[in-house]
Amino acid sequence: MKITFPDKNVREYPEGTTALEIAKSISEGLARNVLSAKINGEVWDATRPILKDAAIELLTWDTTEGKSTMWHSSAHLMAEALEFFYPGVKFGIGPPVDHGFYYDVDLGDNTISSEDFKKIEDKMLELARKSNKYIRKEVPKKEAIEFFTEKNDQYKLDLLQDLEDGTITFYQQGNFTDLCRGPHIPDTGFIKAIKLMNIAGAYWRGDEKNKQLTRIYGITFPKKSQLDEYLVMLEEAKKRDHRKIGKELEIFTFDDDVGPGLPLWLPNGAVLIEELERLAKKTEQAAGYVRVRTPHIAKESMYLTSGHLPYYKESMFPPMEFDGEKYYLKAMNCPHHHKIFKELNPSYKDLPVRLAEYGTCYRYEQSGELFGLMRVRQLQMNDAHIYCTREQFADEFRAVNDMYLKYFKIFGIDKYVMRFSTHDPKKLGKKYVDNSELWLQTEDMVRNVLIDSNIPYVEVPDEGAFYGPKIDVQVWSAIGREFTLATNQVDFAIPARFGLTFRNAKNELETPICIHRAPLGTHERFIGFLIEHFAGNFPIWMAPKQVAILPISEKYNEFSKKLLQLLINSDIRGLVDDRDEKIGKKIRDAELKKIPYMLIIGEKEQAENKVSVRKHGSGDIGTLSLKEFTELIQKEIDTILNPSNN
Amino acid sequence: MKITFPDKNVREYPEGTTALEIAKSISEGLARNVLSAKINGEVWDATRPILKDAAIELLTWDTTEGKSTMWHSSAHLMAEALEFFYPGVKFGIGPPVDHGFYYDVDLGDNTISSEDFKKIEDKMLELARKSNKYIRKEVPKKEAIEFFTEKNDQYKLDLLQDLEDGTITFYQQGNFTDLCRGPHIPDTGFIKAIKLMNIAGAYWRGDEKNKQLTRIYGITFPKKSQLDEYLVMLEEAKKRDHRKIGKELEIFTFDDDVGPGLPLWLPNGAVLIEELERLAKKTEQAAGYVRVRTPHIAKESMYLTSGHLPYYKESMFPPMEFDGEKYYLKAMNCPHHHKIFKELNPSYKDLPVRLAEYGTCYRYEQSGELFGLMRVRQLQMNDAHIYCTREQFADEFRAVNDMYLKYFKIFGIDKYVMRFSTHDPKKLGKKYVDNSELWLQTEDMVRNVLIDSNIPYVEVPDEGAFYGPKIDVQVWSAIGREFTLATNQVDFAIPARFGLTFRNAKNELETPICIHRAPLGTHERFIGFLIEHFAGNFPIWMAPKQVAILPISEKYNEFSKKLLQLLINSDIRGLVDDRDEKIGKKIRDAELKKIPYMLIIGEKEQAENKVSVRKHGSGDIGTLSLKEFTELIQKEIDTILNPSNN
Repeated sequence: MKITFPDKNVREYPEGTTALEIAKSISEGLARNVLSAKINGEVWDATRPILKDAAIELLTWDTTEGKSTMWHSSAHLMAEALEFFYPGVKFGIGPPVDHGFYYDVDLGDNTISSEDFKKIEDKMLELARKSNKYIRKEVPKKEAIEFFTEKNDQYKLDLLQDLEDGTITFYQQGNFTDLCRGPHIPDTGFIKAIKLMNIAGAYWRGDEKNKQLTRIYGITFPKKSQLDEYLVMLEEAKKRDHRKIGKELEIFTFDDDVGPGLPLWLPNGAVLIEELERLAKKTEQAAGYVRVRTPHIAKESMYLTSGHLPYYKESMFPPMEFDGEKYYLKAMNCPHHHKIFKELNPSYKDLPVRLAEYGTCYRYEQSGELFGLMRVRQLQMNDAHIYCTREQFADEFRAVNDMYLKYFKIFGIDKYVMRFSTHDPKKLGKKYVDNSELWLQTEDMVRNVLIDSNIPYVEVPDEGAFYGPKIDVQVWSAIGREFTLATNQVDFAIPARFGLTFRNAKNELETPICIHRAPLGTHERFIGFLIEHFAGNFPIWMAPKQVAILPISEKYNEFSKKLLQLLINSDIRGLVDDRDEKIGKKIRDAELKKIPYMLIIGEKEQAENKVSVRKHGSGDIGTLSLKEFTELIQKEIDTILNPSNN
Repeated sequence: MKITFPDKNVREYPEGTTALEIAKSISEGLARNVLSAKINGEVWDATRPILKDAAIELLTWDTTEGKSTMWHSSAHLMAEALEFFYPGVKFGIGPPVDHGFYYDVDLGDNTISSEDFKKIEDKMLELARKSNKYIRKEVPKKEAIEFFTEKNDQYKLDLLQDLEDGTITFYQQGNFTDLCRGPHIPDTGFIKAIKLMNIAGAYWRGDEKNKQLTRIYGITFPKKSQLDEYLVMLEEAKKRDHRKIGKELEIFTFDDDVGPGLPLWLPNGAVLIEELERLAKKTEQAAGYVRVRTPHIAKESMYLTSGHLPYYKESMFPPMEFDGEKYYLKAMNCPHHHKIFKELNPSYKDLPVRLAEYGTCYRYEQSGELFGLMRVRQLQMNDAHIYCTREQFADEFRAVNDMYLKYFKIFGIDKYVMRFSTHDPKKLGKKYVDNSELWLQTEDMVRNVLIDSNIPYVEVPDEGAFYGPKIDVQVWSAIGREFTLATNQVDFAIPARFGLTFRNAKNELETPICIHRAPLGTHERFIGFLIEHFAGNFPIWMAPKQVAILPISEKYNEFSKKLLQLLINSDIRGLVDDRDEKIGKKIRDAELKKIPYMLIIGEKEQAENKVSVRKHGSGDIGTLSLKEFTELIQKEIDTILNPSNN
């Protein structure tokens, strides 16, 4: 049979060869790292025989699916250990999650606490070292029911009710057998490091009328060092928690009378926002964008045209009714921008039209889903819509990518991936707008730009938006946590719904392609990310206070205030700490506030009209005139904001 | 009896002296200009005898009340003329309005059109020249009913039903007698110029079940030249109509699917907004304000605390209900800012706290009340709230005034008045918060600042807000039309409702005073005003496009585009007109777009790397290097935006 690799290379293998054997045929080292494999787009056990021609992708720890397989198998391993310590324990569901796995268990009369974690981890490690194989077995429904009836596990029996005969599989490793769709790793030996994280309560099937089970979270790794790094990262993430630092640095707050998920930005947070907007506006202006301003509400009719009603209704706030009409808070800016495009009525000579707005949108999230700035109900979005011809599309998309790369440099984001979601030709006209040619054309263009620009990307089939390919931008913070900050979408369906056209060179009406893009995401999520990324030590250009002037006694307060006014005149943000405190205390407090520069002002400084400069986290850097100091700051800002010049 | 003048001067007059006689006792010239008089705060006929000690203010054409009296009397004069031409005509109501007066009349089988205006105006002038006195007469209800029954005027009879016996007065001039509360001018001779404006239909008592009457609008003046000026101004206002220019210059638009009163700001309008915000932010930063950002919605509970619910409910949009709560779009930013003040929890050393935000508010206006940008449902407000101690109040209020004056200079607003509304001591605890001391103290401070700063102001008793004195800022556009752009309020009640406090120097909790201020009003109304004020010829710093580059043939398109990029790099907004058109046409089109500068680019300019500069409305100003031209623009901008430096 013919096996096609991702690079389009084709090799011949005997029928029944497994992905693991294929990996071995390439290298033993590779085989040691193969956790599962994508066979014709579906994730399989690496040990499952392939019976006919197929496209293959070997999945290692570096892939989302590889990690997922490992963690799914780890849930089974934990179950085996739990059955050892708590015979008769019943099992609900045990899936992989973003960071690890959990299993919901019914311990009967037993209880479990974090003090029990060590012994369970040790047992899991012991079982892992046995390198027990995960064995897949197709089981008739009758037999499956018999098995779990005998085991007296009502949860699995409950799950079985929903499954059709002929689709049921069991997986077994060591002494543990589970009802499971798989896939799994070849054997438990791949699991080298184990950590149980925490315990929570969870109602069976999420229904509070059912029994509450015990949910045990854990995570595993193929290397011990990876677990150590992960724990360090978690510890650091806790210190950098944006809610904690957001409070300490007075960046944002919530208020019961305003409502959950609706942050109030305090003066320090507003500086961050203003600076981000200044950067975005300057960048967008240089890139040929024009700005618009649109209301936060619109009539129902607009969202019926866009299709947000009824398809997105659950994410929208309920309507306000007056004048016999329903008005909705906007959840997206695009419909308003489409209306402006229509009013501008451009010809092909005017394209591309790039309409930018820091539009504030409102999306309804369940209150239980809300989380600090990361999951909110108000979103101040770095939004823009680019309307262009098909011929212009590749250049426009490239320019959008270049803007991302510029921002990544400015913010010191070294690790990022574009997750490029495409259509499935089989689902044209159903899940995807039925225009094969445009799908292939735009996907090709997007792919080529990604390859040309040398941007790391992964291609994910069958996850595009209804109206075109989608690019989710994933970045990693300084401590290695992953965030999805922004989504770009190519849209060749909605402009037609709004009747958007331009006259082309042949004087015919043509529908533009629209690129939705928001490189800085929303202020809420982006600032949440930046707080963690910088641990609150914002780079000088966006620091809420850039300079703390610290008079060593009240004799120098007046002079200090004059200095502050001079700094303000040079557009530098500062404060004078004129409290009746020792200079050491003033320095410590300025350090705690993470103010980038401190100016110590005493007799000598006042006499010589100079400032003694201290840098946050690094100490004294010498005595300068105010002019020299101002230039130093301005140069530092310029170096950060114009990385390509430097 | 003792008569007290506004300057607190007191003179003795015999009982029964009239205001007109008092005026004559000062000067004959003054008497010729006295239209009515305020006696103890109530507007009276200047010819009505004063029977005991009183405070007097003589009202001339320069006062709102003087104009009103004249226009009210003019309605009676028009009625007399109408009765002459249309015997048996019935009269509804005939009040003065902002600009003139109207009378609602039932012409029976007759009709009237603007072609009849001339003869009516002529008859009115003829009657005016007779200097017929307006004679006030108190009439028993019975007698009044008899009079109008005989006259067969069912409308006046209808009005009489609502009046109590003993409060009814008639006014008579020449052959016309009307049921009227007055006051009126001494005689018809004061009316020197008359213009009937237009005709509309109006249901009796505004109820469409009643008969539709004919409403005839007119205006009169004490001098012929004033009418001429008024008509020129109206003609100019028509040309400068912000809706017309707004469309021509692509500044804003409305869309049926978005909703009435909700402007969509097109790219040119967004430039105006961005520049205004840049100016405001810079000005506010220099003045020690900090910025905040708050959501556009909040829970019902916040507006119950603020008192907007129920007192302001009719001006708010209806609520959105979810999570078992009602959420409202904000109609004001203050409650959100109060919450931030509370979170910041400042001590007296941190005061004043000045929180600024370009907050977008939503207010429900009846759809019939909406008018272009002047009356809208969305308001982007140049808002800020200053929280200060009583001791700081005068300085803070002075600084706010200074900011107004700076803006007036920047925008070339030469005529302005602060309308200073105070409380009525008799209504403390009812219409006004019951704190006599704070009322008197803050009113005194406001008055002193207004006097010290030499700002023209009028004081209006009994029109303050519930929680403090109010200052409405009235400005006149370049063509002499009056606009109310902004309102400042002093607030010593609401902060207490929100439990806002600071620790004073004695370590006691004290409630701050709050100043609400918005010198640039809302973008909507202010830009509407500026469009008329500048007739769309925006000063260069805010012009949507500052420079049009006009290549004289397509040979110079490339060079022109290079020049544009250089201008953009210097933060100058421009365009290249690369159409295949004659240079004359390109210049005309740039002039129509009111672009401040045109650069003509031909062989010579390209060869010498220079630009030939043409100024909008003034023609060629010579050939410059691009650097010289850029400096010229930057200097022009600097001169406008920093008027005090120049």
